[in-house]
Amino acid sequence: MEALSILAQVAEPADFGPIGAGIGYGLAAIGPGIGIGYIVGKSVEAMARQPESAGMVRTTMFLGVAFTEAIALIGFVVAMLVQ
Amino acid sequence: MEALSILAQVAEPADFGPIGAGIGYGLAAIGPGIGIGYIVGKSVEAMARQPESAGMVRTTMFLGVAFTEAIALIGFVVAMLVQ
Amino acid sequence: MEALSILAQVAEPADFGPIGAGIGYGLAAIGPGIGIGYIVGKSVEAMARQPESAGMVRTTMFLGVAFTEAIALIGFVVAMLVQ
Amino acid sequence: MEALSILAQVAEPADFGPIGAGIGYGLAAIGPGIGIGYIVGKSVEAMARQPESAGMVRTTMFLGVAFTEAIALIGFVVAMLVQ
Amino acid sequence: MEALSILAQVAEPADFGPIGAGIGYGLAAIGPGIGIGYIVGKSVEAMARQPESAGMVRTTMFLGVAFTEAIALIGFVVAMLVQ
Repeated sequence: MEALSILAQVAEPADFGPIGAGIGYGLAAIGPGIGIGYIVGKSVEAMARQPESAGMVRTTMFLGVAFTEAIALIGFVVAMLVQ
Repeated sequence: MEALSILAQVAEPADFGPIGAGIGYGLAAIGPGIGIGYIVGKSVEAMARQPESAGMVRTTMFLGVAFTEAIALIGFVVAMLVQ
Repeated sequence: MEALSILAQVAEPADFGPIGAGIGYGLAAIGPGIGIGYIVGKSVEAMARQPESAGMVRTTMFLGVAFTEAIALIGFVVAMLVQ
Repeated sequence: MEALSILAQVAEPADFGPIGAGIGYGLAAIGPGIGIGYIVGKSVEAMARQPESAGMVRTTMFLGVAFTEAIALIGFVVAMLVQ
Repeated sequence: MEALSILAQVAEPADFGPIGAGIGYGLAAIGPGIGIGYIVGKSVEAMARQPESAGMVRTTMFLGVAFTEAIALIGFVVAMLVQ
C-alpha cells in the first residue's frame, strides 16, 4: 500500500514591476520637467531683451532641451525594462 | 491500493498595477507642472516688458510648453502600460 | 507499507529589484534634470547679453552638461545592477 | 513500516538590498545634480561678464565640481556596499 | 518501525539594514550637494567681480566646502554603522 499525500500551498511572489516602473519614470520626470521649464523661461526672457540674439538663443535652447529630455526618456526606458 | 491526494492552495499574487500607475503619473506631473508655470510666467514678464517681441516670445513659449507637456504625457503612457 | 506525506508551503521571497531600479534611476534623474536646466538657462542668458563670449560660454556649458549628465547615467548603471 | 512526514514552511527573508542601493544612490544624486548645475551656471555667467577672469573662474569651477561630484560617487559606493 | 517527522517553520527576520543605510546616506547627501554648489557658485561670481579678493574668497570657500562636505561624510559613517 502506498499513500502519497501532497499538500502544497504555493504563494506566488508578488510582482513589483508596475510599482518599479511607476516610481522609475515618475521620479525621473520631475527634474527634466523643471529643467526644461527653466531653460525655455530664460530663453524667452533673453530673446525679448536681445532680439538680435534670438537665433543663437533658440539653437542653444534646443540643445539644452534635448539633453534634458534625454534624462526623462532614459527614465522611460528604465520603466519599460523593469515593468 | 494507491492513495494520491493533492491539496493545493494557491494564493494569487497581489496586483500592484494601480499603485504603480498612480505613482507613475502622479510623480511625473510634479516637474512639468512647475516647469510650464515657469515658462509662461517668464513669457508674460518678457511680453509686458518688450511688447514688440510678443510674437517671438509666444512662439517660443508654445514650443517649450509642448516639450514640457510631453514629459507629463509620457507619464500617462507609463500609467496606462503598468495599470 | 510506505507513507510519504509532504506538506510544503513555499513562499518565494519577493523580488524588490524593479522597485530598487525604479527608485535608483528615478531619484538620480531629479537633480541632473534641474541642474542641466539651470546651466543651459544661465548660458542662454549670458550668450544673449555678451554675444562676444558665446564660444567660451558654449564650451563651458557642454563641460557642465557632461558632468551633470554623468550623475544621471551612473543612476542608470545602478538601476541595471540592482534590477 | 516507514513513515516519513515532512512539513516544511520556508519563508526566505526578503532581500532589501536593491531598494537600499536604489535609495542610496538615487537620493545622493539629487543634491550634486542641482549643485553642479548651479556652479556651472554661475561660472558661465561670471565668465561672460568678466572674460578676463575666465581662467580663474574655470579653475575654481572644476574644484567645486570635483567636491560636489565626490558626494554623488560616495553614494555609488554606498549603493555597491548595501546591494 | 521508523517514524521521521520534520516540522520546520523557518521565517528569518527581514534585514532592513540596506534600506536604512541607503536612506541615511542618500538623504544626508542632498543638502551638502546643493550647499557646496551654492558656495562655489557664489565664490566664482565674487572672484570674477572683484579679482583682487580672489585669494580671500577661495580660502573662505574651502572652509565652507569642508564644513559642508563633513555633513555628507557623517552620513556615510551612519550608513556604515546601520548597514
